[in-house]
Amino acid sequence: MYRLHIANKNYSSWSLRPWVLMRELDIPFEERLTPFETGSNGSPFRDFSPTGLVPCLVDGNSVIWESLGIVEYLAERYDGVWPEDAAARAWARCASAEMHAGFAELRQRCTMNCGIRAQLTEVPPSLQRDLTRLDELWSEGITRFGGPYLAGPEFTAVDAFYAPVAFRIQSYGLELDELAMAYTERLLQLSSMRQWYRDALREPWREPGHEAEVSEFATLLEDYRTRD
Amino acid sequence: MYRLHIANKNYSSWSLRPWVLMRELDIPFEERLTPFETGSNGSPFRDFSPTGLVPCLVDGNSVIWESLGIVEYLAERYDGVWPEDAAARAWARCASAEMHAGFAELRQRCTMNCGIRAQLTEVPPSLQRDLTRLDELWSEGITRFGGPYLAGPEFTAVDAFYAPVAFRIQSYGLELDELAMAYTERLLQLSSMRQWYRDALREPWREPGHEAEVSEFATLLEDYRTRD
Ligand SMILES: N[C@@H](CCC(=O)N[C@@H](CS)C(=O)NCC(=O)O)C(=O)O
Ligand SMILES: N[C@@H](CCC(=O)N[C@@H](CS)C(=O)NCC(=O)O)C(=O)O
Repeated sequence: MYRLHIANKNYSSWSLRPWVLMRELDIPFEERLTPFETGSNGSPFRDFSPTGLVPCLVDGNSVIWESLGIVEYLAERYDGVWPEDAAARAWARCASAEMHAGFAELRQRCTMNCGIRAQLTEVPPSLQRDLTRLDELWSEGITRFGGPYLAGPEFTAVDAFYAPVAFRIQSYGLELDELAMAYTERLLQLSSMRQWYRDALREPWREPGHEAEVSEFATLLEDYRTRD
Repeated sequence: MYRLHIANKNYSSWSLRPWVLMRELDIPFEERLTPFETGSNGSPFRDFSPTGLVPCLVDGNSVIWESLGIVEYLAERYDGVWPEDAAARAWARCASAEMHAGFAELRQRCTMNCGIRAQLTEVPPSLQRDLTRLDELWSEGITRFGGPYLAGPEFTAVDAFYAPVAFRIQSYGLELDELAMAYTERLLQLSSMRQWYRDALREPWREPGHEAEVSEFATLLEDYRTRD
């Protein structure tokens, strides 16, 4: 059985990617959640991950790190990770690689924090460029491959790569065009995404570093996480 | 025939990756070099690249952007892009994905500038961490898969992904361990790498932004680029 190492569901956008993909494709795995630590020496993930980052997939003796590495590992073993159509598959891989190293402003200014609702202090041109590119990319995919997912009729790895963006849009009330908002809603309604969200709300941990990232760029409006 | 859009060989580390891979695998392509522009509105690469970034591969009507997207596109069409051995292939993909989004300090402080030799003002702990990780990763690959390349006996995409690092090591006199230095030398001696280097030295362009990135973190010692 695969073991998938992840961090806090509330915060860890990279963890979400392979998790939601495996759930949507019904690939069985054991989830192993290690929470972020504050001010520790080195990463708490160093014990199992060569980079000290999550996600990290363990398959017997094989350690597969990096979300894209995990996705391609699964793609060699299961149908449906990437679209069947060759053009859609090429597009999906490019769009996933673009997310893997891109959208820096979106990732910095709208860090994933599933349980909160916040208002950005400003939307600088650099962030607006990322949002415009999202609109452009999503509408290209959905239009060209027929939707309702980014690269065709099925949820594939490229949707998993953009899944954290849906939570960001929800948390920060970001406005994209109609097609993109409908796609966001579709992602948020997936049963895997709803489960992730529910789990995130119930987590007891508040990691100061991640919380501070929100207040640096936004004003908190609501916090739906349960407090006990 | 494929058309590969690249930027200045002296500066463009991302362009080098698919270029050196296609050369080493003898995949024919037409090279289309568009130099970086200074202070222009928007990227000069926007005309052919959806992100305004290079590299970008054009195959008939298909536009394949993002270096990892290009590599996987080629891997579906040619043998030898990734290692044949499944464990080596999984490792190579993870290591490539790690480079794709990682080694931020190395990439920022030691920007690729093939023709120069420079002395870093300092090696802060953040950069040292990247260098230590390089040592660790390279020696893991070479030891585990038998060398002399990162994932076995042949040059594959993971070597292409780390090829720009060889130029950085040369330009900034970075010190890695013995195994890593020997591997660097091997990369620099490849005929494709030597051709790239010769072409870089002969380029007439000096792009102020890229030149300033050097002087921000280092003192220039030599400049081997031809001036006419
Ligand atoms: N490029 C990596 C990025 C992984 C990453 O940055 N993960 C974050 C959590 S979302 C992490 O592990 N951070 C380590 C820490 O903060 O200690 C991937 O695609 O897997
Ligand atoms: N993630 C991209 C990165 C590409 C990239 O950053 N390319 C640089 C050149 S090395 C670029 O095109 N910069 C645009 C500009 O400076 O105008 C990839 O892997 O292809």
